[in-house]
Amino acid sequence: MGTITNRQVLLAARPSGLPKASDWQMQSVAVGSPGAGQVLVRVVYLSLDPAMRGWMNDARSYIAPVGIGEVMRAGGIGRVVESNDEKFAAGDWVGGGFGVQEYAVLNAKHLEKIDVSKLAPTVHLNVLGMPGMTAYFGLFDVGQPKAGEVVLVSGASGAVGATVGQLAKLHGCRVIGIAGGPQKCAYVKDELGFDDVIDYKSEELHVGLKRTCPQGIDVYFDNVGGDTLEAALARIRLNARIVICGAISQYNATSAVKGPANYLSLLVNRARMQGMVVFDYAARYHEGRAAMLPLLLEGKLKSREDVVTGIENFNDSLLMLFSGANNGKLVLQIADE
Amino acid sequence: MGTITNRQVLLAARPSGLPKASDWQMQSVAVGSPGAGQVLVRVVYLSLDPAMRGWMNDARSYIAPVGIGEVMRAGGIGRVVESNDEKFAAGDWVGGGFGVQEYAVLNAKHLEKIDVSKLAPTVHLNVLGMPGMTAYFGLFDVGQPKAGEVVLVSGASGAVGATVGQLAKLHGCRVIGIAGGPQKCAYVKDELGFDDVIDYKSEELHVGLKRTCPQGIDVYFDNVGGDTLEAALARIRLNARIVICGAISQYNATSAVKGPANYLSLLVNRARMQGMVVFDYAARYHEGRAAMLPLLLEGKLKSREDVVTGIENFNDSLLMLFSGANNGKLVLQIADE
Repeated sequence: MGTITNRQVLLAARPSGLPKASDWQMQSVAVGSPGAGQVLVRVVYLSLDPAMRGWMNDARSYIAPVGIGEVMRAGGIGRVVESNDEKFAAGDWVGGGFGVQEYAVLNAKHLEKIDVSKLAPTVHLNVLGMPGMTAYFGLFDVGQPKAGEVVLVSGASGAVGATVGQLAKLHGCRVIGIAGGPQKCAYVKDELGFDDVIDYKSEELHVGLKRTCPQGIDVYFDNVGGDTLEAALARIRLNARIVICGAISQYNATSAVKGPANYLSLLVNRARMQGMVVFDYAARYHEGRAAMLPLLLEGKLKSREDVVTGIENFNDSLLMLFSGANNGKLVLQIADE
Repeated sequence: MGTITNRQVLLAARPSGLPKASDWQMQSVAVGSPGAGQVLVRVVYLSLDPAMRGWMNDARSYIAPVGIGEVMRAGGIGRVVESNDEKFAAGDWVGGGFGVQEYAVLNAKHLEKIDVSKLAPTVHLNVLGMPGMTAYFGLFDVGQPKAGEVVLVSGASGAVGATVGQLAKLHGCRVIGIAGGPQKCAYVKDELGFDDVIDYKSEELHVGLKRTCPQGIDVYFDNVGGDTLEAALARIRLNARIVICGAISQYNATSAVKGPANYLSLLVNRARMQGMVVFDYAARYHEGRAAMLPLLLEGKLKSREDVVTGIENFNDSLLMLFSGANNGKLVLQIADE
């Protein structure tokens, strides 16, 4: 085949605070042909996630930082252009860690075939993708809710939170969400079916928690950190479980992260706070998908994606996560299907 | 019997910061005779514990605060003076929640008979008492160490920490203690047999942790909180367990308690931090004692008590816990055996 030009977004500088345009560099390179056992993929959709902000920092974490001058790490889905592996053929939909670029060459073993016959491709970046797996294993393996318990979810309209809340509700829990603004709160309560919601932009958190969780909280699924974690800690019940999934309020902090001053509530309430990273569950993703696919097909579980377009809009799109501008799982479309 | 005068220490005011003499009131009252099913006890030894500081605060906690004008809560051991229950006879050694007073009348069901034939009575306030039970269940039920793992213990020369470290060592762990000053550190390493010790008064904690735990920490048993918790969080390993047993560094704080700014280390390391309160294990104390009694008798587990005397010295004695002046489990003797 002829020479294909591949636009790539490289990390040019480590951001301080919110990432800005000058932290990135766009470059165009020629894509070579895939080698033995390799597959060339045209990337269609990229998953934009809060965790990406952490990958830009030069700090010890659960995954190595993206290096300066390297293609920004991103998961995505796309279509096979050319395959040197019998499991994949041109035109197949596949998912993988493509990075923020238009084309990627990967070893076949790092690709996953995607069935788009029943659901929109983007669902594979949401409920059937990383956010959905995070929700499923974080809630059930770490949070371990029992039917009848009170489950509180922050970032409730976000990709992970929306699925956590719906799963907890289907599990028989009383589910309370925290979200920002009337539109998101209506979505959480009316469309996702949470029992109640707190709009942190219009109601003091401790007031909202007292109103919605008068008997306290059994499971708190934390995507936000900071003051929200502290407010939840103040109302946990005996033997509560706090799932530390993320801390979006702190990712762009330029001063020290704020620790929960009332962490001794864990002692008073014999409670636990536990961190989780979705990649640890990779060998069990099939289990999460097997549980959620029928719920999606029956309409019992909703997957909403907010699709923005253009690889050149990568940074502006990413910032939507931190301003709360997205409605549903944020996806960047960089090519036609 | 004739009238017995009972001196009692009442909480007169809620302390701000360290408790002071004027926060207490000593009163003398006459002791009545025990009613049906009751036992009159002459209190000999009282257990002085950091947790007492929390009981003085008017805050929601795992136990109701001591009321103003009430006898200060304290566990102790003493001898039966007069019994209206067939299980107890005059002269018997018994343990119970006597409070800071010379005599107490309790229902027989709230008393426990103590065998002083093999071990000093004060061991029943240490390894065989509340601190020992805290150590045993906190370490094994919450910390869940495996042989070969690295266990870090703060307050290592204190009543709880000393037993935690010895038990972890007997369990086959590599055990590191944190204590203050050369005398305590020598005790922890040379007498209790910890593998290594950090003197936080002479070595920066993060330097000491790097030196003693080069591969990181699997279980951190926290009696101290504050900067020590933060330093430990910075060095935990994958799937680490942090036992939140206490936070002596924070109990007398007059400003807000300091939360661990790096609590997201729990996420990065898929670790958990869990609170525990010894009273939850009351139904299993016999199990802890059955495990530790033979170890004590064989000399494999050491129980050291620091006995000070005089009910009138209650407040000054208690302050020893917060200045670190005690060597071993602090016990206040208020009568001859």
